[in-house]
Amino acid sequence: MGKERGNYQHLGQVIELDLWFTERETDHLTVQWRITETLYRGRSRYQEIVVAESAEFGRMLFLDGIIQTSLRDEFIYHEMLVHVPLSIHPKPEKVLVIGGGDGGTVREVLKHPEVKRVHLVEIDEQVIEVCRKFLPELAAKFDDPRVEIHIADGVEYLKDRRQAYDVILIDSSDPLGPAEGLFTEAFYADASRALKKEGLLAIQSESPFYTPKLVQDIYRALSRHFPWVRLYTASVPTYSTAPWGFMLASRRYLESAGPRRSKPIPATRYYSPEIHKAAFVLPPFIKELLQTDEDGEGVSTA
Amino acid sequence: MGKERGNYQHLGQVIELDLWFTERETDHLTVQWRITETLYRGRSRYQEIVVAESAEFGRMLFLDGIIQTSLRDEFIYHEMLVHVPLSIHPKPEKVLVIGGGDGGTVREVLKHPEVKRVHLVEIDEQVIEVCRKFLPELAAKFDDPRVEIHIADGVEYLKDRRQAYDVILIDSSDPLGPAEGLFTEAFYADASRALKKEGLLAIQSESPFYTPKLVQDIYRALSRHFPWVRLYTASVPTYSTAPWGFMLASRRYLESAGPRRSKPIPATRYYSPEIHKAAFVLPPFIKELLQTDEDGEGVSTA
Repeated sequence: MGKERGNYQHLGQVIELDLWFTERETDHLTVQWRITETLYRGRSRYQEIVVAESAEFGRMLFLDGIIQTSLRDEFIYHEMLVHVPLSIHPKPEKVLVIGGGDGGTVREVLKHPEVKRVHLVEIDEQVIEVCRKFLPELAAKFDDPRVEIHIADGVEYLKDRRQAYDVILIDSSDPLGPAEGLFTEAFYADASRALKKEGLLAIQSESPFYTPKLVQDIYRALSRHFPWVRLYTASVPTYSTAPWGFMLASRRYLESAGPRRSKPIPATRYYSPEIHKAAFVLPPFIKELLQTDEDGEGVSTA
Repeated sequence: MGKERGNYQHLGQVIELDLWFTERETDHLTVQWRITETLYRGRSRYQEIVVAESAEFGRMLFLDGIIQTSLRDEFIYHEMLVHVPLSIHPKPEKVLVIGGGDGGTVREVLKHPEVKRVHLVEIDEQVIEVCRKFLPELAAKFDDPRVEIHIADGVEYLKDRRQAYDVILIDSSDPLGPAEGLFTEAFYADASRALKKEGLLAIQSESPFYTPKLVQDIYRALSRHFPWVRLYTASVPTYSTAPWGFMLASRRYLESAGPRRSKPIPATRYYSPEIHKAAFVLPPFIKELLQTDEDGEGVSTA
């Protein structure tokens, strides 16, 4: 694929190449997307950044060759990462977003009128710049006066914070490359300390169907630092052919994972208070995954 | 791919071909499965039948080149098609299955002790024979004394039935080829007449995300013949990268779509009474789909 469109002049006729991007779900299963245009390609200090137009899902952001988000279904992921914790927390005034350089998470956070300040900690400034330019549907709220952007490594940033946030959202890429440190037990311990007493942590936590061991590891690591941890799911077609996992962890034990504030959230297309509750209902084959407890630590499920 | 394995002898070294099957989700999105062995390939009077071993999902059944089921995730589809209606019906004694030649639906129906008789109406005898041999995990219950197999066109079969069944399950392939007639309004009218007064009809109804117009059409056609119609979903990775749709239609108005009989169903890995309820909770973007009412018929949603 060239810098511009994949056109090829031949005897006066424009030949439009039929270009497909392949994403590996596992070693034995791939998903292919027809790509009609590459809008941006660049290498930052941390990773390769590409924005391309897909025929089925509109514009897509790729980091190191892996799809991060698409205009067609980003609402599912961002609404579920944000509105679940923010509807449970009684007063989410100060919110920290780690990762999330595309801006979709910040956009959803700002829909809650209780929010007074959002700190966005993104390691790669170039991701923010590229998304401002090519994905304004997601990045449009970066200039909101409540938003403060820190270009920093989330792991380092969290180390010094004490009881600073009501909600922390980990909107990371997969646990390889720059995001690896965001999936460690040490990081969860720091996140717990950085939260106020009623604080909630929500993270994207990969696929319970295709990477069950990883989901189990995240769940156990969180459970060592939070008394209350729950897995919830939503189907995000660009991420996986199976439902995507999110983990929610609370600094104190909660009676229920249901929403506690019921003010309607403007312009949601996936989230609703009913979907919120349903997302925590896990089929037996996923429940079993969380009950397996090799460490004898008495991990509890919803 | 040859009749046996895709091996190629070259200078004494066995070269194992790296074979991938591509399924088209839309014109612009495909899913590819690594295939390690073709176990059966044959052409019946109606369609081409293939059973192949996939590296990720185990054995798979293909009809006319489209995946019908896989050993890895068939439990999700079959449990949700069967246990939802059978847990709502107060006394499901006589059950009709149209399609379902792989046997998975019949296997799940027989888990309900109330069931006295299951009629399976499959148009293609060869599908049943092939599944008996190559997919015994699904077809094992065809010989249960409660099962009666009719090799017939489901459309013709239903025309003469009057108040004959408690539950009718339409376990069809996509609405092209032999299954086309199972997605028509005339067929739903016949299904309504073939049901007893408390009768329930459940059908696989394609993808609300990728084929919203088709889902809308099915919903409207059903709504013209049943006073109560609901859409529910479950993620079946082999069918779609987005949740799969099922429709449930009742001959009388129901107060709730929740389960009414609570006896535990043996060996379910996806279905539970909680999953049953959660499956009817639709995100706003799917709800809207069903509320659009071009005919002014006042179609109601859950």
